[in-house]
Amino acid sequence: MIDRIGRTVDSNAFQIFVIAAIIIAGILVGLDTVPEISQKYAGLMYVLDRIIIWIFVGELLLKLVAQWPKPWRYFSDGWNILDFAIVVACFLPIDSNYVLLVRMVRLLRVLKLVRAFPKLQLLVSALLNSLPSMGYVAVLMFLLFYIYGVAGTFMFGKNDPLHFGSLVASMLSLFQMVTLEGWIELMNIQVYGCDRFGYDDALAVFCQHPSTSPMSPVFFVTFIMLGAMIVINLLVGVMITSLEEAHQEQIETEKATLAILQKTETNLEDKLEELHTQLNQVQITLEGIRQKSR
Amino acid sequence: MIDRIGRTVDSNAFQIFVIAAIIIAGILVGLDTVPEISQKYAGLMYVLDRIIIWIFVGELLLKLVAQWPKPWRYFSDGWNILDFAIVVACFLPIDSNYVLLVRMVRLLRVLKLVRAFPKLQLLVSALLNSLPSMGYVAVLMFLLFYIYGVAGTFMFGKNDPLHFGSLVASMLSLFQMVTLEGWIELMNIQVYGCDRFGYDDALAVFCQHPSTSPMSPVFFVTFIMLGAMIVINLLVGVMITSLEEAHQEQIETEKATLAILQKTETNLEDKLEELHTQLNQVQITLEGIRQKSR
Amino acid sequence: MIDRIGRTVDSNAFQIFVIAAIIIAGILVGLDTVPEISQKYAGLMYVLDRIIIWIFVGELLLKLVAQWPKPWRYFSDGWNILDFAIVVACFLPIDSNYVLLVRMVRLLRVLKLVRAFPKLQLLVSALLNSLPSMGYVAVLMFLLFYIYGVAGTFMFGKNDPLHFGSLVASMLSLFQMVTLEGWIELMNIQVYGCDRFGYDDALAVFCQHPSTSPMSPVFFVTFIMLGAMIVINLLVGVMITSLEEAHQEQIETEKATLAILQKTETNLEDKLEELHTQLNQVQITLEGIRQKSR
Amino acid sequence: MIDRIGRTVDSNAFQIFVIAAIIIAGILVGLDTVPEISQKYAGLMYVLDRIIIWIFVGELLLKLVAQWPKPWRYFSDGWNILDFAIVVACFLPIDSNYVLLVRMVRLLRVLKLVRAFPKLQLLVSALLNSLPSMGYVAVLMFLLFYIYGVAGTFMFGKNDPLHFGSLVASMLSLFQMVTLEGWIELMNIQVYGCDRFGYDDALAVFCQHPSTSPMSPVFFVTFIMLGAMIVINLLVGVMITSLEEAHQEQIETEKATLAILQKTETNLEDKLEELHTQLNQVQITLEGIRQKSR
Repeated sequence: MIDRIGRTVDSNAFQIFVIAAIIIAGILVGLDTVPEISQKYAGLMYVLDRIIIWIFVGELLLKLVAQWPKPWRYFSDGWNILDFAIVVACFLPIDSNYVLLVRMVRLLRVLKLVRAFPKLQLLVSALLNSLPSMGYVAVLMFLLFYIYGVAGTFMFGKNDPLHFGSLVASMLSLFQMVTLEGWIELMNIQVYGCDRFGYDDALAVFCQHPSTSPMSPVFFVTFIMLGAMIVINLLVGVMITSLEEAHQEQIETEKATLAILQKTETNLEDKLEELHTQLNQVQITLEGIRQKSR
Repeated sequence: MIDRIGRTVDSNAFQIFVIAAIIIAGILVGLDTVPEISQKYAGLMYVLDRIIIWIFVGELLLKLVAQWPKPWRYFSDGWNILDFAIVVACFLPIDSNYVLLVRMVRLLRVLKLVRAFPKLQLLVSALLNSLPSMGYVAVLMFLLFYIYGVAGTFMFGKNDPLHFGSLVASMLSLFQMVTLEGWIELMNIQVYGCDRFGYDDALAVFCQHPSTSPMSPVFFVTFIMLGAMIVINLLVGVMITSLEEAHQEQIETEKATLAILQKTETNLEDKLEELHTQLNQVQITLEGIRQKSR
Repeated sequence: MIDRIGRTVDSNAFQIFVIAAIIIAGILVGLDTVPEISQKYAGLMYVLDRIIIWIFVGELLLKLVAQWPKPWRYFSDGWNILDFAIVVACFLPIDSNYVLLVRMVRLLRVLKLVRAFPKLQLLVSALLNSLPSMGYVAVLMFLLFYIYGVAGTFMFGKNDPLHFGSLVASMLSLFQMVTLEGWIELMNIQVYGCDRFGYDDALAVFCQHPSTSPMSPVFFVTFIMLGAMIVINLLVGVMITSLEEAHQEQIETEKATLAILQKTETNLEDKLEELHTQLNQVQITLEGIRQKSR
Repeated sequence: MIDRIGRTVDSNAFQIFVIAAIIIAGILVGLDTVPEISQKYAGLMYVLDRIIIWIFVGELLLKLVAQWPKPWRYFSDGWNILDFAIVVACFLPIDSNYVLLVRMVRLLRVLKLVRAFPKLQLLVSALLNSLPSMGYVAVLMFLLFYIYGVAGTFMFGKNDPLHFGSLVASMLSLFQMVTLEGWIELMNIQVYGCDRFGYDDALAVFCQHPSTSPMSPVFFVTFIMLGAMIVINLLVGVMITSLEEAHQEQIETEKATLAILQKTETNLEDKLEELHTQLNQVQITLEGIRQKSR
């Protein structure tokens, strides 16, 4: 019985059925963004949504049963935990006032699609695996953001409260600078003062302590150079890792060729050893002749 | 007869003639963008255009005939199908009111140039070949765009109808964010509300439900990090493929050298085998001496 | 005694203690950016700051003593000099009016963290090591900036004093262009003249000699192409260096294999030499037989 | 005499002297951008400028004489032609009204610096060498720009004359899009029409035929995707070339090792040939014994 469930769960037909359910769930949540449709077919969409949830519950139960008598083994796979969390989230008693939260929970079901396609799962795993190797680069990046963030808050916080008013605001502005988006505007606010640049119209009310810092380009240019340099090395880091994996195969091929080469060498040595033995016999034979000839 | 046509079609003179016609077609469509010229020389340009079309028709017919008695083989090459489509499009009964469409059809003739230069054709084929290897990355990218697009529409659709009013608008805004162009403005509209940022002057009429979402930077920063990370890996993917092809040659050269090496080894083995035989003869001779000496 | 201090300084417990002090110093300087906290707990924060400075002084003295009787050896490590400079800077008699400078000095303590983690130290060393290899690229980049900077000042200085008024302003604008940020606005100011583009509102006062240069796109497009091309090659330069280091290992492995291969060859030669000697003996023996047989 | 001049020209002292002159020429042209200095010290700067020109003339003549009796060999080096052109340009009878042109000519002297440093010369040569390998990519890029440029002029020329009014304007706008700078603004002008977006204030006068094209995002998104894709491959192309050159050395080292290996093999073969000859002699000797023993 359990065996049969296991086979059902692993069958192509079952997997295609689940993938179809996920895709329909995805389309439903997409159609929900169109007000006319979500209002007109509210009833139908609610029914479909319920059906899909019960399909997911069914899939979950079947997979749990397939692991019988050790159902906890189901949770040893990270992707199963994701599946479980998505199903559980659907039954959380969320107050219907928090429509947004309900919708976000529903949206996350689309993530099950990553799980459903083995190649996609592999790709995401590869992406997740490349994270730890960037660990220390991330720490260095954080240090850079923290030092420039604190310095920026001290230097520009009064003049430009919207971008450097607090440590969090400063670090968001530094992230903006690392994407090279609008960093010139940020710099000009400090160079010319918020009363002469950037705080126009509705934002003018935030400019209460205008001041100019003619040396601020040093702050901005050095941060972009350092930030970009680390980003380049981070990129290189990812690339090296990927390249090494690609070269691994190639190296192994070469090593195999060398191994074959060494094997022929070894054959040569064996043969020479044989020759050596033969010559020794020749010598002994000749010694015999010599002693007889005396 | 058919043989002679085949030789004509493959001759350099014929190909240069066709390339010249394509280049003139390209220049004509370019001159057409200058209103003074396109009006003053309308008659001359129409005549030239007709001549070029008949050259293309002639090229097409010659190539079809060259394949006689199996003219359908002409269509086994994708580039021939492009040629055929371009010629057919010139004779479609397009209403002369749709000037723009007529011009677009004419513009596509320039694509024949890619076909005319073998190296250019190779380059385009290489570009097209690198597409499938990016397939799953594209699927992942689409999932990311879809999830953030639906979430963005739910969260920011009311406040910012121009950028997040519908799923299509949201996904276009996300594409804008992936190019890192103006993402700060998109974020600020959500942080400050459309009544205080971004909906100035003529656009103010679209801001009807202003609201602020102080947590929106989380949405924007995580999307840029995830989007950029996948883009980096996509870039790496293309690079790996290209690098591997480049290294292939190199590896083959090394393997060839190793093969020569192994050949000399084999020579050595042959010689040692000879030696072995000779020594056997020596031994037999000596045995003969020994028996005689007894 | 000195031995025991050396062991204490190298112990895990001591290092964790120092790291904790650095992290607390980092958090303190971060909390200092929040006006409410820095005013309310000013006394407590001053006390903690003093404690941390004395921990750093203690660490410095212990490390100096650990090198006894050659304390100057402490300064042979660049990271120790950084430590020393950070401690010395804390005791500089800075006028309390220069609050900003005091804070910057305090902020630099966070850099000690790089030193505290060996892997982070390695990463920073790797980044610093990649600098010299970019030396000539940097010289070329500077030449490009200098030539375009001087040309830009001559051509656009009168029309656009804010961006090209002096050589320094021009080179800052060129740096902005290399980041591809807002270069279109810079170009348009020259194309349309400062009276018609870019010098709005408060900045209008700076536009005193408006002029138009229709050929200015040539300046901007060529600079972006050249600048980006060199940047790409710079990026490639960094990558090559990193890749070569990664391949170094691989090559050494291959060389080691080849060395083993050559060693077996040498063995073969030795053995053949032996055979040679043996055959000579055989020949001598046979000569003896021959002479006896006469 | 000519020999001595040749040695003088190649001497370190002479080269340092010329480099110093180039650097002073560079600083002079830089100081010229500061109006106060260029006016106050106009006489001194003119004298220095004359001295530097005569140093360059002297260098040129010495190098020409050093090639005696075949002075035309001087022009076989491209860098010498650059030197010659710079000197000749200084004596062109430029009307003193064209101050800008005189200054540009003076500025180009800085390029002599590239020539003066061998490593910088090597780097620039490497950059120039990587150009031809990008040839077909450039042709493809041009085709893409041409097709989208003509299409853009037809579709958006009336609505947005400043960015798409002519083929040249369109291609400049497409270059802007490839740098990802402000492409959203270009798109919005077409989506909303020039009367509602982008043609504010002084530019409003250019908006005479406002129209909206809701499908224009297709034009912009596809161009950015195609353009960026080709740019990525162009970048990869440059990288491959550079990587291959870097690997070339590595491969040659490996090949050298293999050559040594093959040489030892050849030695082995020689020795085996010797052995063969010896054994033949042994056999002959034994045949002699045998015949005698009969």
